Amino acid sequence: MRVRRGRLVTIEGGEGAGKSSVLAELRAALAAAGHEVVVTREPGGTPTAEAIRALMLDPAHAGMAAEAELLLAFAARAQHVHECVLPALARGATVLSDRFTDASFAYQGAGRGIPTQRIAELERWAARVRPDLTLLLDVGVAQGLERARSRGGEPDRIEREQDGFFERVRGAYLARAAAEPARFRVIDATRPQAEVAAAVRAVLHAWLGEA
Amino acid sequence: MRVRRGRLVTIEGGEGAGKSSVLAELRAALAAAGHEVVVTREPGGTPTAEAIRALMLDPAHAGMAAEAELLLAFAARAQHVHECVLPALARGATVLSDRFTDASFAYQGAGRGIPTQRIAELERWAARVRPDLTLLLDVGVAQGLERARSRGGEPDRIEREQDGFFERVRGAYLARAAAEPARFRVIDATRPQAEVAAAVRAVLHAWLGEA
Ligand SMILES: Nc1ncnc2c1ncn2[C@@H]1O[C@H](COP(=O)(O)OP(=O)(O)OP(=O)(O)O)[C@@H](O)[C@H]1O
Ligand SMILES: Nc1ncnc2c1ncn2[C@@H]1O[C@H](COP(=O)(O)OP(=O)(O)OP(=O)(O)O)[C@@H](O)[C@H]1O
Ligand SMILES: [Mg+2]
Ligand SMILES: [Mg+2]
Repeated sequence: MRVRRGRLVTIEGGEGAGKSSVLAELRAALAAAGHEVVVTREPGGTPTAEAIRALMLDPAHAGMAAEAELLLAFAARAQHVHECVLPALARGATVLSDRFTDASFAYQGAGRGIPTQRIAELERWAARVRPDLTLLLDVGVAQGLERARSRGGEPDRIEREQDGFFERVRGAYLARAAAEPARFRVIDATRPQAEVAAAVRAVLHAWLGEA
Repeated sequence: MRVRRGRLVTIEGGEGAGKSSVLAELRAALAAAGHEVVVTREPGGTPTAEAIRALMLDPAHAGMAAEAELLLAFAARAQHVHECVLPALARGATVLSDRFTDASFAYQGAGRGIPTQRIAELERWAARVRPDLTLLLDVGVAQGLERARSRGGEPDRIEREQDGFFERVRGAYLARAAAEPARFRVIDATRPQAEVAAAVRAVLHAWLGEA
């Protein structure tokens, strides 16, 4: 295992919480602080992992078993970590990922009902790294879905789920944040985008000062 | 979990051992004995699992991490078992699969060096069923590869491996057969096709008599 010098920052939240929108903000703040920043996303982040993502989200696979979905998510993650995250951390870069393993606990765990223990086991040997800092953008399910839909485009396989599914996802994210306060920062993402961006910058500056 | 009334018969062996060639033989012998036979294969066997197979074997993904390959194999298997194998077994059919979980122990375990324990863990919750009978077609690596190549076509991502990889695969299959003699029947597949077919029929008739 390579030496790990850099740090892993992840952004989590339900559909339309505003994760992708704050990425540019975070990248700029980290770069201004002198970091080499690698911006990536999950599922995906490398060509093979992006191919797995496309398969996972394709509405054609509507009958996908929960276990298959979990294993695809971790197959993509294993590839992403091997090919992108670990090499970047080894050379001291800050990796900024739009979703990471917390999403599997929320979506496949709480959402699909897969026992947490199985996901934790996969996290140990397939994900191998845990984030140093996780920003959780929290917004009500209806508001997030409304935003995601206003973006247009066909909903993917997971976006077609029922509201109850997304409520379980949100609850799991909040529970994980409560259980690991040193790693998580929960950001109220119901506010206008400029306020969310300011909150994200403030969290990051505080963390850079501490770390 | 559904009641399991039918039985699962699997065919294993290295590249070009003759697995696909004996399937028709086995199907006919089982049907003649009055079984409803479901012939399937791994990776694959359902549309989603076949899409995962295509991704797994695509030479474009030459840099695939061993862990990603293992997780893709089990994602396909979880889907195959959920959608095809378990429903067939529940209605009493005999499922005949061209490869199954033993292939992951041989290829991703011995071939790629992933610890057996991790694969055994995935077998428990993602594969969920174990074969009742496994026919292992055994042939030397060079002879099998020669046969596979004589079929023509571009080699897939796994067929491009080195001989040492296939030697480890063969050794693992033989070791598994030795460890589970009640389930495995090892068939000398170096012989002409008609003799292999006769050996397969004899094994099947003996097993049907016992079972
Ligand atoms: N704070 C906000 N207030 C209002 N609209 C917002 C806010 N943040 C983002 N949006 C808008 O909501 C939509 C969804 O935002 P974004 O794509 O960043 O969310 P996301 O969390 O990345 O979604 P997904 O889960 O689909 O990846 C976009 O159209 C974006 O412009
Ligand atoms: N006993 C045999 N003697 C000679 N040739 C054989 C024998 N069995 C199969 N073959 C030939 O070898 C080739 C490979 O056989 P087959 O496709 O059945 O192997 P396989 O184990 O299914 O291979 P793969 O691992 O690629 O799926 C085919 O062209 C087949 O006709
Ligand atoms: Mg997004
Ligand atoms: Mg074959």
